[in-house]
Amino acid sequence: MTAGPPSPERAIVVGVDFGTLSGRALVVRAHDGAELGSAVHAYPHGSVERTLPATGATLPPDWALQVPADWIEVLATAVPAAIAAAGVDPADVVGIATDFTACTILPTLTDGTPLCELPDLRTVPHAYPKLWKHHAAQPHADRINRVAAERGEKWLARYGGRISSEWEFAKALQLLEEAPGVYARTERWVEAADWIVWQLCGTYLRNSCTAGYKGILQDGAYPDPDFLAELNPGFAGFVTDKLDQPLGALGARAGGLTAQAAAWTGLPEGIAVAVGNVDAHVTAPAAASVEPGQMVAIMGTSTCHVMVSDRLGEVPGMCGVVDGGIVEGLWGYEAGQSGVGDIFGWFVDTCVPPAYHDQAAARGIGVHELLTELAADLAVGEHGLVALDWHLGNRSVLVDHDLSGLVVGQTLATRPEHTYRALLEATAFGTRTIVEAFETAGVPVAELVVAGGLLRNRLLMQIYADVCRRPLSVIGSEQGPALGSAIHAAVAAGCHPDVTAAAAAMGRVHRAVHTPDPAAAAVYDELYAEYTALHDHFGRGGSDVMHRLRALRTRVVTERENR
Amino acid sequence: MTAGPPSPERAIVVGVDFGTLSGRALVVRAHDGAELGSAVHAYPHGSVERTLPATGATLPPDWALQVPADWIEVLATAVPAAIAAAGVDPADVVGIATDFTACTILPTLTDGTPLCELPDLRTVPHAYPKLWKHHAAQPHADRINRVAAERGEKWLARYGGRISSEWEFAKALQLLEEAPGVYARTERWVEAADWIVWQLCGTYLRNSCTAGYKGILQDGAYPDPDFLAELNPGFAGFVTDKLDQPLGALGARAGGLTAQAAAWTGLPEGIAVAVGNVDAHVTAPAAASVEPGQMVAIMGTSTCHVMVSDRLGEVPGMCGVVDGGIVEGLWGYEAGQSGVGDIFGWFVDTCVPPAYHDQAAARGIGVHELLTELAADLAVGEHGLVALDWHLGNRSVLVDHDLSGLVVGQTLATRPEHTYRALLEATAFGTRTIVEAFETAGVPVAELVVAGGLLRNRLLMQIYADVCRRPLSVIGSEQGPALGSAIHAAVAAGCHPDVTAAAAAMGRVHRAVHTPDPAAAAVYDELYAEYTALHDHFGRGGSDVMHRLRALRTRVVTERENR
Repeated sequence: MTAGPPSPERAIVVGVDFGTLSGRALVVRAHDGAELGSAVHAYPHGSVERTLPATGATLPPDWALQVPADWIEVLATAVPAAIAAAGVDPADVVGIATDFTACTILPTLTDGTPLCELPDLRTVPHAYPKLWKHHAAQPHADRINRVAAERGEKWLARYGGRISSEWEFAKALQLLEEAPGVYARTERWVEAADWIVWQLCGTYLRNSCTAGYKGILQDGAYPDPDFLAELNPGFAGFVTDKLDQPLGALGARAGGLTAQAAAWTGLPEGIAVAVGNVDAHVTAPAAASVEPGQMVAIMGTSTCHVMVSDRLGEVPGMCGVVDGGIVEGLWGYEAGQSGVGDIFGWFVDTCVPPAYHDQAAARGIGVHELLTELAADLAVGEHGLVALDWHLGNRSVLVDHDLSGLVVGQTLATRPEHTYRALLEATAFGTRTIVEAFETAGVPVAELVVAGGLLRNRLLMQIYADVCRRPLSVIGSEQGPALGSAIHAAVAAGCHPDVTAAAAAMGRVHRAVHTPDPAAAAVYDELYAEYTALHDHFGRGGSDVMHRLRALRTRVVTERENR
Repeated sequence: MTAGPPSPERAIVVGVDFGTLSGRALVVRAHDGAELGSAVHAYPHGSVERTLPATGATLPPDWALQVPADWIEVLATAVPAAIAAAGVDPADVVGIATDFTACTILPTLTDGTPLCELPDLRTVPHAYPKLWKHHAAQPHADRINRVAAERGEKWLARYGGRISSEWEFAKALQLLEEAPGVYARTERWVEAADWIVWQLCGTYLRNSCTAGYKGILQDGAYPDPDFLAELNPGFAGFVTDKLDQPLGALGARAGGLTAQAAAWTGLPEGIAVAVGNVDAHVTAPAAASVEPGQMVAIMGTSTCHVMVSDRLGEVPGMCGVVDGGIVEGLWGYEAGQSGVGDIFGWFVDTCVPPAYHDQAAARGIGVHELLTELAADLAVGEHGLVALDWHLGNRSVLVDHDLSGLVVGQTLATRPEHTYRALLEATAFGTRTIVEAFETAGVPVAELVVAGGLLRNRLLMQIYADVCRRPLSVIGSEQGPALGSAIHAAVAAGCHPDVTAAAAAMGRVHRAVHTPDPAAAAVYDELYAEYTALHDHFGRGGSDVMHRLRALRTRVVTERENR
């Protein structure tokens, strides 16, 4: 047994954010959200995309896996390190909450053991968790969408008319059809967001956020067995056999910290463990932006847009609308861009010549910083380029991960900063496309709030303000998701009555930091028109070249491997 | 007076090839074409594209100038150096001939003095020679094409329906409208190919090659004054006042070497100086490929395709068909691709990260070689990319220098060797497009013969053979244009009766060196279909985005400079 609870002023909560490559723990004062200390632990296996660590075997294109033991390491290293960095007494900690990438999902036994940890399955790629950016289930998603449209499944409109290859059903159908033996041994198909909570408190609840956004739970029901049987007779019992599970509301207490988890983390046994959640969605309260129409764009390797609204609208190509998916009592909307910072990183890593690296090194700055500086000197339109930001597919509004990148306008005078800027702009055009889709569908976007690592790039922020013709607010914390988790921990521990109240007390935002320049915005309107024309030509069937090139790639690689 | 002529076996000729960045002299035995020695001299000012050397003033986009004194330096340094390298007695030299880039053109006084050498005009960009790749006269070319089409000018079809912004009339119209003062002082508008011959022998003849291909001389007539007046009233007298001049047939003697030129070159005064010619066109005899249907592709920074035929066809988008434009008595066809090696070079210079440069350096090879090696390991279609090779516009078959490059299909897995290979392939698709345009128009292409520096890249040659589904022959000389000029010098000096006979005696080719792989060719057919669809969408009006991006670029740059 622990001693009595600390006084409200002393109560501490811990938020843990599980990202794509690392996990971060943040120690926060529950009454005002003050950030007292944090620590990061990189996953030893990172994002597994090329070869399976256990065997060295090459993974097929578009695969991305993770290793569950990496996540446990975060609990055992980053949490105690953050407590130490904060200089607080662990006994003052009253709650812990986590957020995760999604849909990151794994097959387990009924006791939660990941199949990839069974001795005979550690060499089987399909036994591992599939990371959100595993995009090899696109054919399965396509089939789900086609059959759902043909049958007039009413849940389809809640996902903008298309579910994503990233989500629970597409990845499960891929598992069934490509590795039926592994599928048969899958007793539970578990969101990593819920699996980590299960490890912390011993209770498996499905959080209402991922159940709705990634698991097609709408109005209390999953897709029915008839529909699933039409996809594949062996899939009919999927929901009943492997997926369905009691739900947990966001901010609710899932259970008490187990002795095992207390040992990992150094926190008191029995403290509140909050229901699981998603990195993007918890960021809205961290940015004190949970009023209807406040759209929070979490901009990092990818961008996720979350917004609560009192209106239910069917927005073509959004990721989803879920009742209570962000905050209980309001509709939660999600949209996204698959590749943002990842595209800029790819460009810097693979498309920038030595002279730029040398110059950046000589000045003691990064190549991103140098390119940003050079790009900022260009007039809008000076580079003569327009790009499509689909190097990792398109999540919204086309929901098609078989799309790919495009750059038009390069000449022999094109320099790296030109293309870099065109890529920055392309992602801004992608965000404008999403905002316009919401407004056109009658769901007003009152404010754009930016969170995530990319908010530090002032040029990028100005481009977004100019392209979207809106002032940008920015989150007041550098640890948005972890702070958002801490807010949920505080609610689960009873420090605040609900997430809205906790967000007001603990969240932070700076309003209208970047304001649009009308002259730049006017030129961007011209470039945006070009972007939209290319977007529709290559994304809506004018030319299917991107699909054919990807299919050809897969075919010739497969042929070579079969020789 | 010189001594009597050397015996036929001892007779030596000199060919001088004036390229984009340097000039090369080649010393050749006249009876069998044996190459005895050569020397190169780089132009001190190279291709002047960013700032005017005399003032440091920034040139507008798409400009490219040269400095005539650089050309004279080639005569004075490369020619004696080549004679020395060959170890021959200058007294045995019986003729000299030159070839030049085209259309490279300059304004002069009636005595041949370049306007840019007049003290008050050396600071004026428009007074300088405009290099072939000066592309700032596109609006003028567009107007010429529109007015010619409206009036039904019958010469238009001889140029595939569009004359190029690179040519004599477009550049002259730009001069008139942008610098009327310089235009007024232009007494002669002279192809550099003819200007250099004028310097060598004191006689100004227009060679029938550039007069036809670049000067719109067809069936003995230039465009008439009514047409020119419709373009601009001040342009009506252009032909009579500044352009018209006696013609010289290819291979004919223009005159004897002057004392001044003998002093520059160290060659005997009075020896035969051949009528001027163009680098690409003289390469056909150097490759012993002057039979009807032998298409010679000279592949370097750009590619020029030349072919003689006994049939007159109107091939849409070819550069031109000229009676006797390559060999007297046959129709000479020309087509081209504006950017080939230049695109590969741009990619290596500006799009390849340090690790590749380091690896190449560690292995003692070039980055081109490393990328070629890595690209050669890819299966056809594996990169998932298709590109349009228009970074320097499109010469054939679209004749539009305001087009630009495009790459579609990049993902975060795209590596430099992928894009590099896609660019190599794009140029092969461009060549196939040209070959098909000829055949569709009823002008058969019997054989593809490759000359130019790029023939050393075996991967590139294999791609061309596979894409075009034809065996490739390759020239047997590394000095195609200079050898071709030497062949013309030998004819001018009377060593052979005509160019065809001289080509048979002095030219060299290896037949069917690279043969197509049917399996690769089948996959390339799929990629070529994608190329063609993109080519037509972006090049034939489906989307005018490239023109709008270029116009926007020009507008914003101009606005900034006017601020």
